[in-house]
Amino acid sequence: MYGQQQRAYTYKDRPGSLRGDGYGGGGKSRYNPITNPATALAVQSHNYEPDESEVWRAYVAQVHFSNRGQWWTTGKKRALKRWILTFAVGVVQAVVATSCNFASRSMTSRKYDYIYELLNPSFVESSTAFWNFCLIQVLLCAVASMFVYIEPVSGGSGIPEIKCYLNGIDLPRVVRIKTLICKVIGVTFSVSGGLPVGKEGPMVHSGAVVAAALSQGKTTCWGVDTSFSKFSDFRNDREKRDFVACGAAAGVASAFGAPIGGVLFSLEEGASYWSTKLTWRAFFCAMTTILTIQAITNIDTWWGQTEVGRLFSFGEFNSISGGASNYSIWELPIFGLIGCLGGLIGAVFNAANEHLTIWRMKRVNHSKIRRVIEVIVISLGVSVVSFATPLIWGRCTELPQDMQDWSNQEKNLVESLVPFQCEPGKEYNEVASLIFTEADTAIKQLFHFREGGGEDNSTFSSGALFLFFVPYIMMSSVVYGIAVPSGLFVPSLLAGAAFGRLCGHLLHKLDHTSGTFADSGTYALMGAAAVLGGMARMTISLTVILLEATGDMQYTLPLMIVLMSARFTGNVFNEGLYDIHIHLKHIPFMEPEVPPVAERNEIVAGQVMSAEVKCLRPVERAGVVYDLLRSCQHGTFPIVDTASGGTLYGTASRDMLCTLLQRRAFGNPDVLDDYDNSDTLGTRRLSPLVQWDTIERAYPRYPNIDDIDIGEADRNCWLDLRPYANTAPYTINETASIQRTYRLFRTLGLRFLCVVNHNNQVVGIITRKDLLPESLTESLLRGRNAHVMEDDIHDLS
Amino acid sequence: MYGQQQRAYTYKDRPGSLRGDGYGGGGKSRYNPITNPATALAVQSHNYEPDESEVWRAYVAQVHFSNRGQWWTTGKKRALKRWILTFAVGVVQAVVATSCNFASRSMTSRKYDYIYELLNPSFVESSTAFWNFCLIQVLLCAVASMFVYIEPVSGGSGIPEIKCYLNGIDLPRVVRIKTLICKVIGVTFSVSGGLPVGKEGPMVHSGAVVAAALSQGKTTCWGVDTSFSKFSDFRNDREKRDFVACGAAAGVASAFGAPIGGVLFSLEEGASYWSTKLTWRAFFCAMTTILTIQAITNIDTWWGQTEVGRLFSFGEFNSISGGASNYSIWELPIFGLIGCLGGLIGAVFNAANEHLTIWRMKRVNHSKIRRVIEVIVISLGVSVVSFATPLIWGRCTELPQDMQDWSNQEKNLVESLVPFQCEPGKEYNEVASLIFTEADTAIKQLFHFREGGGEDNSTFSSGALFLFFVPYIMMSSVVYGIAVPSGLFVPSLLAGAAFGRLCGHLLHKLDHTSGTFADSGTYALMGAAAVLGGMARMTISLTVILLEATGDMQYTLPLMIVLMSARFTGNVFNEGLYDIHIHLKHIPFMEPEVPPVAERNEIVAGQVMSAEVKCLRPVERAGVVYDLLRSCQHGTFPIVDTASGGTLYGTASRDMLCTLLQRRAFGNPDVLDDYDNSDTLGTRRLSPLVQWDTIERAYPRYPNIDDIDIGEADRNCWLDLRPYANTAPYTINETASIQRTYRLFRTLGLRFLCVVNHNNQVVGIITRKDLLPESLTESLLRGRNAHVMEDDIHDLS
Repeated sequence: MYGQQQRAYTYKDRPGSLRGDGYGGGGKSRYNPITNPATALAVQSHNYEPDESEVWRAYVAQVHFSNRGQWWTTGKKRALKRWILTFAVGVVQAVVATSCNFASRSMTSRKYDYIYELLNPSFVESSTAFWNFCLIQVLLCAVASMFVYIEPVSGGSGIPEIKCYLNGIDLPRVVRIKTLICKVIGVTFSVSGGLPVGKEGPMVHSGAVVAAALSQGKTTCWGVDTSFSKFSDFRNDREKRDFVACGAAAGVASAFGAPIGGVLFSLEEGASYWSTKLTWRAFFCAMTTILTIQAITNIDTWWGQTEVGRLFSFGEFNSISGGASNYSIWELPIFGLIGCLGGLIGAVFNAANEHLTIWRMKRVNHSKIRRVIEVIVISLGVSVVSFATPLIWGRCTELPQDMQDWSNQEKNLVESLVPFQCEPGKEYNEVASLIFTEADTAIKQLFHFREGGGEDNSTFSSGALFLFFVPYIMMSSVVYGIAVPSGLFVPSLLAGAAFGRLCGHLLHKLDHTSGTFADSGTYALMGAAAVLGGMARMTISLTVILLEATGDMQYTLPLMIVLMSARFTGNVFNEGLYDIHIHLKHIPFMEPEVPPVAERNEIVAGQVMSAEVKCLRPVERAGVVYDLLRSCQHGTFPIVDTASGGTLYGTASRDMLCTLLQRRAFGNPDVLDDYDNSDTLGTRRLSPLVQWDTIERAYPRYPNIDDIDIGEADRNCWLDLRPYANTAPYTINETASIQRTYRLFRTLGLRFLCVVNHNNQVVGIITRKDLLPESLTESLLRGRNAHVMEDDIHDLS
Repeated sequence: MYGQQQRAYTYKDRPGSLRGDGYGGGGKSRYNPITNPATALAVQSHNYEPDESEVWRAYVAQVHFSNRGQWWTTGKKRALKRWILTFAVGVVQAVVATSCNFASRSMTSRKYDYIYELLNPSFVESSTAFWNFCLIQVLLCAVASMFVYIEPVSGGSGIPEIKCYLNGIDLPRVVRIKTLICKVIGVTFSVSGGLPVGKEGPMVHSGAVVAAALSQGKTTCWGVDTSFSKFSDFRNDREKRDFVACGAAAGVASAFGAPIGGVLFSLEEGASYWSTKLTWRAFFCAMTTILTIQAITNIDTWWGQTEVGRLFSFGEFNSISGGASNYSIWELPIFGLIGCLGGLIGAVFNAANEHLTIWRMKRVNHSKIRRVIEVIVISLGVSVVSFATPLIWGRCTELPQDMQDWSNQEKNLVESLVPFQCEPGKEYNEVASLIFTEADTAIKQLFHFREGGGEDNSTFSSGALFLFFVPYIMMSSVVYGIAVPSGLFVPSLLAGAAFGRLCGHLLHKLDHTSGTFADSGTYALMGAAAVLGGMARMTISLTVILLEATGDMQYTLPLMIVLMSARFTGNVFNEGLYDIHIHLKHIPFMEPEVPPVAERNEIVAGQVMSAEVKCLRPVERAGVVYDLLRSCQHGTFPIVDTASGGTLYGTASRDMLCTLLQRRAFGNPDVLDDYDNSDTLGTRRLSPLVQWDTIERAYPRYPNIDDIDIGEADRNCWLDLRPYANTAPYTINETASIQRTYRLFRTLGLRFLCVVNHNNQVVGIITRKDLLPESLTESLLRGRNAHVMEDDIHDLS
């Protein structure tokens, strides 16, 4: 009685499929993540909406029913918990960031203090210092790489991973506590190890993990169950994503002291949803972080009026004289030009790093040991270069003397100039002052030192800037991608600041009457923005972050001009570095805009969909469901009415089906003969009911089909899928344009989209992978042969 | 032969409609904008997506075909034009804003100069000044109200109108050139007329109109065709909305010198789309505006280093000493308290204005003459109060003497203190100094004067602040809504600054050791933010606008705290003022979030839809179409296959149908007998074809059905709608939850949504009006009796 329907119903079975072959094509394997190497990574999309099934509706109705007449409803309780958790995220992230900052600062300063003691003007004795220096740096980097050895996901900056997460891609292990620990401790060591890396990217990642961990409450770390919270109301993809967005905002806020920039970063990356409520939460979270950091850093003054607490700052920009700007309006085109140059530098940087990364993926990354060895080798190289460049420069400059009218900030910066084989307290080595300090001190030096002092009347001469800039940016490009946690913002800013100050010097040399051009510090700021913008190509959020870090609104217009021109110039050559890395990893990242290939050509949904759909019937034999789940990795299965030729009844998710099989929610095999039309089934339930919250409780680790086994006797039992079917899935007509399809899919953050014809019969399914530019191009090449479009052209034109 | 199908097919005709009565109900009139007073305003939604019909696809294919192999494609040309136009919008808006600012400033200063000449310490002679003062002010206000008489839409702030426009509502005449002219000239007079109004809201409106006018190229103003541009590539709702968003950003940028705040304002209001490309364009547009304003204001210094060009500014906040903040961290809770108080003040302000507006709508607004008289009466009242309060204060304070270490800004502010019956050059009247100056000077005085000078050791004593604050905020509440163009930002900021400074004074009195609390200027800034936030309840964009106007990043955290607490406190009592006015006008404004009534109850799409759908058949008699169009005002008609019980074939827009009737695109009546099943029609075209661009050329003034007349002979002709049908309309299943429906509708900015059942049969249609909270509540009350849900509960629980 069940022989002929022993396998799942597919689109091909449907009689009289309307122009099914014109679109879609037959045996495409794109939907199968196993056979296609591009999707070999077990990447799943997030599911932001609950399946609207009968059991879900019953659950919602029950919740509403239990709240009837109450003031303190479940919804309000949840809202309060959500705000409390958001507050907690802000506080914890502030503590994490402050600790990481304190640790790396003290390690760095101890390292340099030790080296300075060993350094002597005589060359022979310096060699001891050199060897010690190399040894310390290599050791620290090796420790950093050990953490990446333990948890590979914690390598790199983390910003691509968070971008992907907010884009709706469930990369494995990205927001685990283990990753957080490895990342934060690792980046402390890699920064202390003297590599040209920053800790800003990792801080953003850290904020995201803190948020995910706190909101989910229950998590396992190295096998230990760290259930520290009963707040498990938020265990679904949507809530988790919202928390991660808040956490990322807190991360940016802690890294740059830029709360608004942080909120914008989250919103820009998670562009598929712009919710006012979420904006406020992210705002609140970032605010809490800043507040906590201020409270921690100012605890010694009893929270009085002290420096605005920031872990990273550009220092204070002072106007030349009250009310006037530091630049002339006619200098804005020059800033634009610097932006273009920065865009070029960024493009070269990205291209070099892309080639290196491809080489690394082939030769290094397949072995964990090789990655550690690479770190050690590169760290040694960086140490040698760092020590060699000041020696090559080999000139001592007198410290500035006439400092009566200098500000405190400038006096502090003078103190941090490094003698390096010069007479301490009287002279300094220009190149060493940039290398042998922390990166943010070096940036402040480039931004704020006024002219006066060394050769050609400035603290840093053009030669020194050049000698620092070229090796530093080359090292940065080499280092990004090795197996240590490493951010890219600070190296870009530092290299850019040197470049910008160099530009300023050259302009000043052209100009014999002084005072025509803005001072070199302003040019250094523009250069920093240009190189960072040319590398990252980030949009409005980066402008706001830089503005907040600068803390002076007069730079709004120049920064906007620089970042825009850097972005446009860079985009002529290649993508932003984060996007390059996302694409190299073959992650199905959906850009906010429809890909140009779709804009330039007429493609319809029916052409890009996967026609190889595996369907289920409303009531199905358990054996058929089991075999289907084992035979493919699809995340969602349409439920169709076979009698009417595959009319869409609803959809069933893999997780739900696995849960049903695991819980053995089968009905008696004899209750029903095989059937043709689901209308004949009536409203009788054919199998025991599993409640919606029972299914959802397993989130995010639903049962795996490989762990489930059903006996031969059970195979014949009926599984009644009707109460669990998502009866209102998003659908799109097969004639819809790709623009409309893309917008629907991307804007609502969907996981799948059923493609139907005019009779609501399922003709295909569209997932994230079908809408990537490569898939669209492929569809287009096939579509060129389709006759429908050309017919239209002849007919109508 | 066509007797039995002489009227349009409706849902009721369908045989065997599945649970049609359970949902939706019968003769609802909500969908009809005529019978329901709430929608009596002829409000249409924008249509952001082209109807994807065969003719549209053919048009797109033709464009692609003609671009084949070319480098300089139509798309690139359009993109270039778009950027050029965006640039032009920025420049023009800057010129408009600068002119308006210059005109109102010079008019105001001439007025005060004239009055000061007449003013004398003797009371008798002052009466001449008083009468002159009243006369001038009333005259200026009367002129302002004349412009609103000419164009009623130009009254008020314009921000609610722009919010509605970006929300997707096509309010008539909002973005016309006539409105722009009336608004800009009108606001110049109303500000000069001494009313407590600002010109910032109108500037935002102005930017939007400039953008709409420039992008549309062709427009009529007072009957004169002002076709000044051939750039008419952007004549559709989507492009126009994008330009308006850019223009609004430019408007905010010009009003507050806040380019980033402007971009955020546009994005927050037009929240249904967050497009990276549009962000960049808005960014560019705002940047251009700022650049042009800087260029214009600095032209006298040959664009050298001068003051950062801003039309409105909070002045320069100087830190007490380098690096330290102007406030202590433990003062942040006090700021939060001020925020709460500001929220309360805002709530009272809004409630008072709401009641006044309702009264006005009943008693004044129905007659244009009454509105002008109201303006004259209120203006007289404001003049009397303005003149009386300084007289009541009647005390002369000595000018501060010890000004060696004061900054230029403070010295300038001292010069702008008003003697008003005191000895000029030696004394000033504290209250008059706040009233008899321009609002932004008064704001700067409140923000920047240090303690020292008058009674209780400050420039403005507590009594004077109180005497200014109470009448001023009451007048503001009365004035908003009268028939003059009037913004609300500046009055709120000024009143709030007085309130905040007052709070500061009171705190300083509590504190005997000086220096514990921040100076009164900081408190004034917090008060300004609190009252503005309590009134407008705007979100993140307001924070950024205030931050950019303040120009000092150390205030980020306090401002965030103040604005958040003001918003939360205010929201306990009522909505923001702009939302109140939108709702009083019964505009179907869709909030970004699902209304709470839907969150709290289980409603499905089938319950909220309008079941009274007027449908057409794929091929229809011209007479039937004509009668249908005349009988109702619906904007969209589903096209259904009657044979299969109403299967959705596509949709047809009213505009398209009118164009077809006007162009008489009919086929021979004898070519076809009446038919039952559209499949039998084959692919033969039954009427002549009208190309897509022919239909679209009429945008935005499509033919009206009342202007079309078809003869008796034509009534019988066939109209083949198949090539024009939007075959891929957005649909939703009747069982979808209201959350899902709302999100789909709001996020994609739809105009309508077809509700279908499992067989793709049209059971209803959802438009904007069906998703408003009131409609949802109504549906819910009906839905309580529906048995389906309760069945589910009993069955499953």
